[in-house]
This record gives sequence, structure tokens and C-alpha cells, in this order.
Amino acid sequence: MTQPTAGTFDPHDRALFTDRYELAMLQGYYESGHTPTATFSLYFRDLPAERGYAIAAGLEQVIDYVETLAFDDRALDYLAEEGFDAEFLSYLDAFEFTGEIRALPEGTLVFPNEPLLEVTAPIHEAQLFETFVLNQVGFQTLVATKGARMADVVRRHGDGQDLVDFGSRRAHGTDAGLTAARAAYIGGFDGTSNMLAGERYGIPTYGTMAHSWVQSFESERASFAAFADVYGDDAIYLVDTYDTITGAGRAVTVAADRDVDLGGVRLDSGDLTALSKQVREIVDDASIVVSSGVDEFFLREFFDDDGVASAFGPGTALTTSADAPNSGVVYKLTAVERDGTLAPSMKLSPGKVTYPGQKALHRVERDGQYQYDVLARRDEALEAGAPQLEPIFEDGSLVYTPPELATIRQRASRELEALPERCRHVSEPDPYEVRISDRLKAVTQQTEGEIRDREL
Amino acid sequence: MTQPTAGTFDPHDRALFTDRYELAMLQGYYESGHTPTATFSLYFRDLPAERGYAIAAGLEQVIDYVETLAFDDRALDYLAEEGFDAEFLSYLDAFEFTGEIRALPEGTLVFPNEPLLEVTAPIHEAQLFETFVLNQVGFQTLVATKGARMADVVRRHGDGQDLVDFGSRRAHGTDAGLTAARAAYIGGFDGTSNMLAGERYGIPTYGTMAHSWVQSFESERASFAAFADVYGDDAIYLVDTYDTITGAGRAVTVAADRDVDLGGVRLDSGDLTALSKQVREIVDDASIVVSSGVDEFFLREFFDDDGVASAFGPGTALTTSADAPNSGVVYKLTAVERDGTLAPSMKLSPGKVTYPGQKALHRVERDGQYQYDVLARRDEALEAGAPQLEPIFEDGSLVYTPPELATIRQRASRELEALPERCRHVSEPDPYEVRISDRLKAVTQQTEGEIRDREL
Repeated sequence: MTQPTAGTFDPHDRALFTDRYELAMLQGYYESGHTPTATFSLYFRDLPAERGYAIAAGLEQVIDYVETLAFDDRALDYLAEEGFDAEFLSYLDAFEFTGEIRALPEGTLVFPNEPLLEVTAPIHEAQLFETFVLNQVGFQTLVATKGARMADVVRRHGDGQDLVDFGSRRAHGTDAGLTAARAAYIGGFDGTSNMLAGERYGIPTYGTMAHSWVQSFESERASFAAFADVYGDDAIYLVDTYDTITGAGRAVTVAADRDVDLGGVRLDSGDLTALSKQVREIVDDASIVVSSGVDEFFLREFFDDDGVASAFGPGTALTTSADAPNSGVVYKLTAVERDGTLAPSMKLSPGKVTYPGQKALHRVERDGQYQYDVLARRDEALEAGAPQLEPIFEDGSLVYTPPELATIRQRASRELEALPERCRHVSEPDPYEVRISDRLKAVTQQTEGEIRDREL
Repeated sequence: MTQPTAGTFDPHDRALFTDRYELAMLQGYYESGHTPTATFSLYFRDLPAERGYAIAAGLEQVIDYVETLAFDDRALDYLAEEGFDAEFLSYLDAFEFTGEIRALPEGTLVFPNEPLLEVTAPIHEAQLFETFVLNQVGFQTLVATKGARMADVVRRHGDGQDLVDFGSRRAHGTDAGLTAARAAYIGGFDGTSNMLAGERYGIPTYGTMAHSWVQSFESERASFAAFADVYGDDAIYLVDTYDTITGAGRAVTVAADRDVDLGGVRLDSGDLTALSKQVREIVDDASIVVSSGVDEFFLREFFDDDGVASAFGPGTALTTSADAPNSGVVYKLTAVERDGTLAPSMKLSPGKVTYPGQKALHRVERDGQYQYDVLARRDEALEAGAPQLEPIFEDGSLVYTPPELATIRQRASRELEALPERCRHVSEPDPYEVRISDRLKAVTQQTEGEIRDREL
């Protein structure tokens, strides 16, 4: 048996959670004595399908990673076995980040080509972060966005329904289950079924009843009665184990027999919209929780068809971002020190522009609505709009106080409300305008020209 | 700042990595004094789209979970704050698994309705495992299957090319990155870029060169030269930063200048099939690594169109199982103790049959090819085929020695070779036949009839 390590991650593990080529690069830089300062940018080339925006998330995990990253003896021994050189390993042994990181705060809207994160440091330091940063920010941003899309449908078409993450069982592993709960909460969810996310992040936890509970008793009625005895007024009965309408009627009867309020019922199969309306007639004003196959497309139809619910429990679609399971964020070198200054840099893959150099990003608002963004060079004096990138690390030190999760969530909510509705449609949204400053365009063109002259 | 916990999982975390409703059920069972023995089965209702088979994976993580699961004081304090009762918490404090688990060994083919895992225990014990087991076995089985599909295309149409997991950066979190490397290796991959997977599981690690390496030098040529100086004959040059054909030519020149062998080149963008053929003319017999957008559909076309490669580096498609990011496995109560015996149980959701009761699963082989499976009741005497489910825990004790990862990988390979080719097509495979024994059919019908009589 190899070491079974589902989610067993400590700083040791995080140091080795990297692609071999990152360490191969590092050893190469070290042995060549080639360690220029460089800037890497983490950004979307395009948003995933059907997305008019993304919501930044995962910065807090990156901060923790940068602050704790360390190669212990066990890691160094393994790397030695794998053929890395002793001198290089003694460098890793003493690894410390000395650079600068700027970032979009979590909960902020982000559009194509806009830096989620900009790392400027000796190239080997910035390079080392690539695998982890893509892994964490990519996934959390994906789920925060998926969650925000659902929350936004409820906000615009619903009636204040709660959204609760039921997706831990469907998440790709334990880390994903936990951070998906966090990201969905940032995106506007109200709670999670995951107790660990409750403990770690202070997210409210919710849970109802399982089919197995119902099946385990001699009858559905007996199972409801036993549940009422334990949970009283708070009981929410899962009513579709045998027949939803019959089950809803039984929940009413049992609550009356036990002289408790009917907390609510949960619907988990069948035509949920039609059933919700029939069940509303039966259960009066008790809660109705709808929990199977819920995503933003379902929600839009549910409200269009006058479905009735108090809460929704999205699972698979949320935690796997099922219709777009990959964020596509990239971490690219955009500038590198030459002759003492940071020179813009880019690669020339067909159809993939990278805007070179360190960036400024301004968001222009009028009457509470975002009009457009301006992506520019950092050294430009922009007049319009508010700057979006904040300093996180300077000279290797953390200079940022991560906000409370509730604050991040409020930010995401305000951001979405300021985004024009045409950019928030769940299908075929209008793209939000990201203007590229004239100077950035000129530098891009010039850099590309220089590379073509030099390389081709 | 809340506690940033990307992948920070210890036994404490695993205990709380559960849905609130699991603990609500447990408290209910405990307080009702209703703790019958029950059997839960983990299985696919249907295979994900285009899959003719799945490869079981994740059992080792489940074993470790069952063996280490414990609620520490911090977990119990949190649950007390969340309103769970002191008496119930003292039960959790002393939690120990006392039951039985049978399972398909990792690396075994699995088809719809066949138990990946069958847990028989006092109902609250078996219930508690649900969230974690679905999370781990669901995801790993998904990736083992995706990996096996790629490995099988290489086996049938390729020329012994290596398959290396390059997907850690695209995985949904750190746990997923790590277990995806493991699952892909089970499915037939030859290595991973993930150093932690290398350390933990002994999987060979691979890495080449990044675009940032090339960009960071004053020219592509200088970047190749520096790499050659560090890595000599082993250097694999990423040649598409500016222009693939030009880059390949430069790699040849630099290796010759440095008087080292050209280890190989990596192609990461453009029309990879066409480029691979052009590049083969330039690099002679050096390795060609192809690494962008690789999945089983790409591989089939690549071979059909006579593409040339020595190795492939699938990323996103592999670790997110991009075309089917959810396995759909379920964990259902199939039997529960009534009057001292285990009675078959099922729910009646439309279109979703659960075969009730404890199962036997036999696989029938002729001349090295699997003919069909038989799913039956455990107490049936089946003559045909070899039994597939193995005892893992008995009376709460581990009675199974998990095989080495290499052994699991060999099993998967043998299994695939025994599966008729028509069931292995990457698009529209023929379904493999799973026969339901007459007795199991009869019990299913009878159980459903009894439930209808009782409940409807």
C-alpha cells in the first residue's frame, strides 16, 4: 500500500505540489546564474463558455502558500533521489520569497486579459508559484463564478431564496469540496452542507434528510415520525422516496400528529417545477427545498415557469462547474529584466495575444453602473476609473490584510449589481468592454515586431 | 482572514468532511434508538457519456479513511456549537467502525449497477461514510477511466508512446491534482509532472521546459544553449514560443554546437499533427512530446492522420475529465435489518432502478475475452464466471492487503485487454452485457410490489 493521502496536505506537501518542469527551470536558472527580475501575470485569455464575467477567488490560499512555502528535509531528500543537484537543493532549503505581488481582491469582477495576480520577483521565485496558483485561483474563480451566476438569477428573478452548496460529494477531492464551499459563498451562496467548511470558514451549514433514513424505517410515515421526535419544528422531510405528493401529505399529517410545525420538505427528483407547485398547495407556508440538477439554467426556467421554493441545493453543477470544468487561466511571463530595466515580453502563439509588461487596471463607473475597464501599462497616468489591483506583497512581506469572508461576499454582490444586466445573462451575455490603452497597444505591437525581427 | 486551508487535511478535517445531513441522520438514529444493520452500495446508475466501461479507483483512500476516522475535541466542540447534543457527541467521540466492507479491487472494470463498494454495518456507521466515499471513489474512478481511454487508444493505434499527466495546474484543488496523478497511472499512464505524486506514490515524474524559460533569455537560441549546458543529452526543448519549425531547427543547431545529443522537443500549440510530421524531418530520432489539448479523441485523430510523437502530456482533459466531469456514482441503501434479517430495500424514483440486497458479481471469460457479467444476490450459488467483490473489512477489521500501485496498474491493463474491442471505442462503444440473475430480478420486483402496497 502506498501512502493513501486523500487531501493530506501540509507545508511539505505544498512545496512538492509543483510540476517537475518548474523545479527543472529553477535549477537551470540557478546553475546558469541567470536570475533576472521578471513579472508573471495570471489571467483569463477568454472567459469560459456562456460567462459574461468571472469573480476572482483564491487569493487567500495563495497568500498562505507564499508565506509558508518551505522545502523540508524529506522533500529535499526526494529531490536528491530524483537527480537534482546538491547545490541547487541548498538554495531550495533556504527559499524565501523576496518579491512583489499585486492582485485583484477576492470578490472582484474580472474579464479577459485582466491580471488576477501579477508577481514581480527574481524569475525563479515567481516561476515556482505557477502550479499552485493556477490550481487554486483557477478552480476557486470557476466556482465563485458559477455560484454568482446562480445567485444572480435568484436576485433578479427569485424571491430571496437561499442557495446552499450540496456538492461536496461530487467535488473532485476533499480540497475541492472545501474550497468550492468557500468560493460559492463568495459568489453569493448562503450556506453549505460541508461541516468542515462551516468550521473553517464560518459558513452557515444546512442539512435535511436522506433517502436512506426513510428506507430504514418500516414505513415512510414511521421515518417522518422518528425525525419529528428528534428535530421537532426544525424538521425538513425528504418526500420523494416513494411518491412526492403522497410524501408531502404524510409530512403534514405527521407534523400535525406530533403537534410540531412543519419545518419544510425537500424535493429531489421528478419534474421539480410542477411538483413544487403541487406541494405548495399541500404544505402551506412550510419551506420547500429543491435539490436535484440545480444550476443557473434550471433556476431561470424554474422561475419562468412559476416554480415555488424557499431554498435550492445545487450540487454537481456547482462544485464541478459542470458546463465549464476548466477556467483556462494562464500564468505568463510578461516582462523580464534586460540591461537593468523590466522589458516587456510575450510569446507568439497564433491567435493568443499576451499584453506585455506590468499592468494597471481601472474600472469606470457612472451612476452605479460599470461602463468599461481600461487595461494599461502600470506606468501610465490614467484619469478615468478606479484602480483595481492592490499590493499584496512588497519586498517579500505581506502588506495586505485579507478581508473577512463576509466582506468578500458583499464585494462580489456589489460588483454584480454594478455590472450591466446585458452582461449578466446566463446564456449569450454581451461582452463587457475592456479597453486596451493606446500605450499598451503600441508596446504590444512594438514588442511583437522586435521579437519577429530577432527570432524569425 | 479565515484559515486558508488549501488541501490542509488531517484526520480532524476528514471527520468533518461530511454533509451536515449525515450527522443529522446519525443523531436521529442515535436518539431514536433505531440502529438496524444496513447495506449501502456504491455504484454507477449509468456510465458517463461515451464510456463503455469504468476503471475502479480510490479504494485505498477509503480504507485509510475508515481506519483513521476520529472526531477530536475541536471537531466535537464545533458540533456542539452547531447544536448537536452532548450525548450524541460522546457517541461520536468513541466512534469505531464495526462492520463489513466488500469492494471491487482498484483497477477492475466496472459497469452500471455493479457495486464498487458494499458496506454492511449498523446504519449510522455506514451512513457516515457517504460523503467522503462518493467524493474519493467518484473522482478517482472518473480519472482512471479517462486515463485508461487514452492509454487504450495508444495501445491499439499508437507505437508505445508514453502518456504523462501534465494536469496538476488544471485539477480542482490540490487533493484532485494528487489523486488524479495516481488514478491516471492506474489507468495506464506512464508518469506525472506532479512531484508530490512522485514522492507519495512512486510514480515516475517528467518535465520539460516552459515558455517563460525561453522568453527570459535574450533569444530563443540563448535559452536553448543555457538549457543544454545544464541538462546536456537529456534536454527537451520547448520549440513553439515563437515559431515551431524555426524553434525545432534551433534545437538541433544548439545541441550540435554543444556537442550533446538532442534529447527531444515539445510541441504545445498549433496544428500538432501536421507540425509533428514536419518536426520529425528536422529532429531526426529525438523525442517529440505533444502537450496541448490531448485527450482520447485527439489521440485517435492524431494516429489516424499519421502524427509522430514519442510522448503525450494530457492536462485539462485528464484531470478534470473534461467531457464528463462528474461520475454520477451513488451510495444507496439496498438492505436493512427487519425482524432480525437483512430485508431488501429500494426507493421508487421514476426511471431509477436500484437492485436491492447484498450482491454477488461474477465476470464470465472465454478465451481471454470477457463475455458478460452476472449481477446476483449474494446468497445465490453462481456457477459461471469469477467472483469480483473482495472482502476488505470484516467485523471492523481490515482483512485486505492493498496491492502495490504497479500491481493495480497491471490489473487495469489486463482487464482492458480482456474487454471486447467494440466496448472500448472512445465514441459510441457497444454496452457490455450485465445480466441480472433471475432471482435478483424476482426480488427486485417483489420488493417494489411490497413498497407500492405499503406506501402508495
